Amino acid sequence: MEDRRWKMKVEINLMGDEKYQKLAAHLTKVHNLTIAYRVLSWDQQVNMPPAGDAARAAQLATVWRLRHELFTSDITARLLEEAAQEVEGAPFDSDEASLIRVARREYDAAVKQPAEFVARFTQAKGMATAVWAKARANNDFRAFQPTLEELIDLKIEEAQQLGYKEHPYDALLEQLEPGMTTAEVKAIFDGHQPQLTALIAAIGKQANNVSDAPVHQHFEIEKQREFGLSISKAFGFDYNRGRLDISVHPFEIQFSRDDVRLTTRYHEDFLNPALFGTLHETGHGLHAQGFGTSIEGTYLSDLDAGSGAIAESQSRMWENVVGRSRGFWKWAYPKLKDTFPAQLAKVDLEAFYRAVNTVRPRFIRVEADEATYNLHIILRFELELELLTGKLKVADLPAAWNARFEQFFGIVPPADKDGVLQDIHWSQGALAYFPSYALGNLLSAQFFNKAVQDVPSIPDDITRGKFDTLLNWATTNLYQHGRKFTVDELVRRVTDKPIQWQPYVAYLEAKFKEIFRSW
Amino acid sequence: MEDRRWKMKVEINLMGDEKYQKLAAHLTKVHNLTIAYRVLSWDQQVNMPPAGDAARAAQLATVWRLRHELFTSDITARLLEEAAQEVEGAPFDSDEASLIRVARREYDAAVKQPAEFVARFTQAKGMATAVWAKARANNDFRAFQPTLEELIDLKIEEAQQLGYKEHPYDALLEQLEPGMTTAEVKAIFDGHQPQLTALIAAIGKQANNVSDAPVHQHFEIEKQREFGLSISKAFGFDYNRGRLDISVHPFEIQFSRDDVRLTTRYHEDFLNPALFGTLHETGHGLHAQGFGTSIEGTYLSDLDAGSGAIAESQSRMWENVVGRSRGFWKWAYPKLKDTFPAQLAKVDLEAFYRAVNTVRPRFIRVEADEATYNLHIILRFELELELLTGKLKVADLPAAWNARFEQFFGIVPPADKDGVLQDIHWSQGALAYFPSYALGNLLSAQFFNKAVQDVPSIPDDITRGKFDTLLNWATTNLYQHGRKFTVDELVRRVTDKPIQWQPYVAYLEAKFKEIFRSW
Repeated sequence: MEDRRWKMKVEINLMGDEKYQKLAAHLTKVHNLTIAYRVLSWDQQVNMPPAGDAARAAQLATVWRLRHELFTSDITARLLEEAAQEVEGAPFDSDEASLIRVARREYDAAVKQPAEFVARFTQAKGMATAVWAKARANNDFRAFQPTLEELIDLKIEEAQQLGYKEHPYDALLEQLEPGMTTAEVKAIFDGHQPQLTALIAAIGKQANNVSDAPVHQHFEIEKQREFGLSISKAFGFDYNRGRLDISVHPFEIQFSRDDVRLTTRYHEDFLNPALFGTLHETGHGLHAQGFGTSIEGTYLSDLDAGSGAIAESQSRMWENVVGRSRGFWKWAYPKLKDTFPAQLAKVDLEAFYRAVNTVRPRFIRVEADEATYNLHIILRFELELELLTGKLKVADLPAAWNARFEQFFGIVPPADKDGVLQDIHWSQGALAYFPSYALGNLLSAQFFNKAVQDVPSIPDDITRGKFDTLLNWATTNLYQHGRKFTVDELVRRVTDKPIQWQPYVAYLEAKFKEIFRSW
Repeated sequence: MEDRRWKMKVEINLMGDEKYQKLAAHLTKVHNLTIAYRVLSWDQQVNMPPAGDAARAAQLATVWRLRHELFTSDITARLLEEAAQEVEGAPFDSDEASLIRVARREYDAAVKQPAEFVARFTQAKGMATAVWAKARANNDFRAFQPTLEELIDLKIEEAQQLGYKEHPYDALLEQLEPGMTTAEVKAIFDGHQPQLTALIAAIGKQANNVSDAPVHQHFEIEKQREFGLSISKAFGFDYNRGRLDISVHPFEIQFSRDDVRLTTRYHEDFLNPALFGTLHETGHGLHAQGFGTSIEGTYLSDLDAGSGAIAESQSRMWENVVGRSRGFWKWAYPKLKDTFPAQLAKVDLEAFYRAVNTVRPRFIRVEADEATYNLHIILRFELELELLTGKLKVADLPAAWNARFEQFFGIVPPADKDGVLQDIHWSQGALAYFPSYALGNLLSAQFFNKAVQDVPSIPDDITRGKFDTLLNWATTNLYQHGRKFTVDELVRRVTDKPIQWQPYVAYLEAKFKEIFRSW
């Protein structure tokens, strides 16, 4: 009733000045430039010949600068104000109120950044990724160092422009997880780090109970691809509205709800990276394809600009909570065995389930197991904090990485390509992004628990290869909203609680106690 | 001496206001938006999942509209004027004078087009290509008809906006081949059409002398691809600065001189389309990679916005004048035989050379031989003239196409997909583009003759697989200039004559008399 009255009021308003429609159309232009930027970036990572970097960096810089100029123009401020009056009283979760709320927040931040800085930063990023890729391939941190120094300086400059109360990190975090502070993230990390360390130590004593030899065999890449695609389709990803390619660093990118691109990378002698990588990106992809049709093409229809924690909660939920569960493999393993009969004939379901759930220190974050993963993030978070204040110099970063890695995991990366050079993020100027991964892990359990509470058949459905009950729940409760909500707004809306680490730790303990002790 | 004095004068000027540098930087932004548009378009044709069309059309429309607004803003006019004063006296072929000349011409035309029209037209084009592709696949002209009607109406509207003296076609032609009129094109076409018809009739009587059975066998696609790539590389195309993909309608597109994309399509049972298609696009690609480094990234570094006739002269020169010559196959045929030993063991060089030079009426333009090709163009030219004046309705186009096809070639397309639906051009709003192909054919001979006159070893070099003498000549005389010159300016500069049809007809007569009469 409340909503109906509002609807009528807004409809009457829209028959008048239609300021809101003007705002939406204006912001759609901004959005379309964002997508143009994304297509150029996807192409750079998936298709572009190596020599194209310099020109592409300039193209990216132009597009992003014009996007910035368009977004920060006076017309945005004026339309935001006029539209806000027009749709006053619209419910918090309506398309109208959400569009204005999100755009207003981002406008207020964007106007603090000079267009000149935005272009300079974009150009630097555009060049940096290729430098990083080459440095990583050559295991040569020094080749990347000047570029990273420039990028860190730019991020410090950006934090100054945006402003912050306690720590420059707050300014960057606010862009990625609005409303969250560095102190809050630190409290969550400090809260569960001891639990993880204790769990890993307990598992360490039983590590010999489980062997991951089954996944370390020769697996033909074409068959890996076929199997990954088949699971991705079974989860519900629609390949008429998306595709899967290969890139050095796997990612998902959304050009529209009807054009969602996933990438992965294949290892001939290790099944996990492409298999779970594909499921991970599929999780993002389901999210992106599940956006509500009423927000398609609008400023809100942009998964990649929304909360990273919400996004990662879904990639991790499909990759891990579903994709590494015994129930899932009960259904999927016979199919995998059919795909790789020679390799898996003598491996039974239980042995395979345990093989994909081995827990041990690994150098590469994207290959980390569920129990150790958040420690990889906490390590990066702590280094980023020090880089931003200048406490840690880029020149000293490899040594600091290795020292902390040993402290966390008891081992030292044999080479920088397996350590400080492994991630693309810094080369893309994405500082303060890593915490979202850890928060996403926590949320994957928190959301899944709620899904099962609402739809108790979900665990059983998964054992039968029926994923639509979970997908429907997630679409209704999470995906359709696009990026209307901050992570705090969404998690409270859905679970009535703020982000909590307890459900995730409880999930890990239950799962791994069963795997490592009851054998 | 003249040039040196000018250089000093300009350098002194540039130390002052540097208006020219401001103009160049401003136009580079426009150029970068053009390239962003091209990347979105390439992706649409090569990678995009089918459902992505609607969003992509909106993205393309936004990018092109902003490009148009940026280009037609007052700042362009002001900078053009100020920069022109600053570099007054710069030689006609200097980067500076050329940039201003080309930009001024295009600015004067662009300001005649309202941004609203540009966005509407771009959006219509963005949607139309998918409609065309589907209609062609289903052989269903009626499914494309409303879209084509809309596009023709838009082109008529565009011609009115741009203005013209004699025929609306003049307005569109001026955008594609500045300085050329419909009457001039018609005179050139009328000049050689009887010669072609006579040649084809003469060949027709001897047609049984030559069989194309050798190219109509089963050829594995992967091997076709490898062979095409090897020739493309031998010609000099640099795959560190480019790539080859598959698309429904083959094309070349330049994102920078260091990022040039070619596409082709493969037929399992017909060697020619992919082989000569690859050589054709390679010709464009060599042109695009040969742009001078001093214009890289500037408004002039855009092959696709330059003269189509110049562009096509190079695709046709490499595809035909080189790629269908006896000398070329003397070198290449042993390699092709190694690639397809089973298919070609019993086919000798002479039989193969003749097989790829059969002359007979074919339905598909891109599969047409050199003798009949320009008739395909003249047919389209005449239909376009009538469509633009309303003399011919879109609804009647298939019948008109078939009637004229029978008149020109003595045969009727068995289906619209082999007739009126075969080309992508109209679906992209490219009316008045076809003449450039025919002019390109004429120029391929005119330029090649001049190259041989300058570097007499070229024909012998080709028989030894040495293509750099021709490539160097073409780079120096044609490619390095980017799009500084109109077709008339360039052909006079290089050959001291306007576009002539006589060299091409002489080339055809010499070649085909030898093939069809001396057997």
